[in-house]
Amino acid sequence: MECVVRPCRAEDCVEVMRMIRELAEFEKLPDQVQINDQVLREDGFANDPFYRCLVAEVPPEYRSRDGHTIVGYGLYFFTYSTWKGRNIYMEDLYIMPEFRGIDLEENRMNLGSPGICTPNYAGKGIGKKLMSKIAEIGVENRCIEMKFVVLDWNQAAIDFYQSQGAVDLTAAEGWHFFHFKGDALVRLAQGQTGL
Amino acid sequence: MECVVRPCRAEDCVEVMRMIRELAEFEKLPDQVQINDQVLREDGFANDPFYRCLVAEVPPEYRSRDGHTIVGYGLYFFTYSTWKGRNIYMEDLYIMPEFRGIDLEENRMNLGSPGICTPNYAGKGIGKKLMSKIAEIGVENRCIEMKFVVLDWNQAAIDFYQSQGAVDLTAAEGWHFFHFKGDALVRLAQGQTGL
Repeated sequence: MECVVRPCRAEDCVEVMRMIRELAEFEKLPDQVQINDQVLREDGFANDPFYRCLVAEVPPEYRSRDGHTIVGYGLYFFTYSTWKGRNIYMEDLYIMPEFRGIDLEENRMNLGSPGICTPNYAGKGIGKKLMSKIAEIGVENRCIEMKFVVLDWNQAAIDFYQSQGAVDLTAAEGWHFFHFKGDALVRLAQGQTGL
Repeated sequence: MECVVRPCRAEDCVEVMRMIRELAEFEKLPDQVQINDQVLREDGFANDPFYRCLVAEVPPEYRSRDGHTIVGYGLYFFTYSTWKGRNIYMEDLYIMPEFRGIDLEENRMNLGSPGICTPNYAGKGIGKKLMSKIAEIGVENRCIEMKFVVLDWNQAAIDFYQSQGAVDLTAAEGWHFFHFKGDALVRLAQGQTGL
């Protein structure tokens, strides 16, 4: 099966937004999605875009049961480490469930498999192709590190990433991920926090 | 004491790099620092900079024991959440130890206190002033979230951030921080990983 990984175009934002919602449902946090496809388009396709995105597209004859030909996406941006310099950050990597576990080389499908890729197919599937391309863009831009976050219960994803050489920095070094959001951020900006 | 928070200039990179090394030593990971001030300058002050930075500067009469007037920095960049849209990410927040725990309003000093700010002074010190300014820049750019990572043993920093309204997403939702680095990233980019 021929699957093309190419840069997301502005008109693809509707399809990417659909998959962002699917991923949030899979992650059991669907209420967290507060943007829509207009916001996604504005933030990614104006001057100084806030993110970059790749999509995985299959030929029409392989379209999904619902008629989609854009069946996965990888959204990323450049960040910075004061230790290691230029970084690339993979915000999302998502493949529609019916396109997971497909061996692109052998044109063999393993439908209904859990997680992003079954370990048997890691390295040959659409998820790997997308992630490898993001890594390639990072290396071309002299990034020496690619970061991302994973939910600790998503063992299939963790197994996949670790099979590719990723390291869990929270487990290895104790890094915890924090945020200020919404009202807390506004209060902080206004100097109204603290004692 | 008057402490000015202002954007870092290219010529300040030597001072910021000095403090990056001090912070890595405090975090017990000094060997991780692989960049130098030339790299920092190139990555932050060319077209499409990879990061932005604020510095805290005190008047010469308040300079450090070693003669430094730039006594803290906050390094940040814009990122993106496919759930919440525009984000600002605080990569580093650092104040030299001898300038921690200073109450800027009351001009009172509490030298030698541990952590980034002692809780007694949270909200009135240089760290708070830097962090609040980063939050303000985020809000001005329509970010509704500010993210950062903290080492789990750095309780003084965690107490400070939480006193300001931050939430530990690793503890609350189970997010783990992963990376591919160096050779692992290159192998991934070349499609040489996996089974």
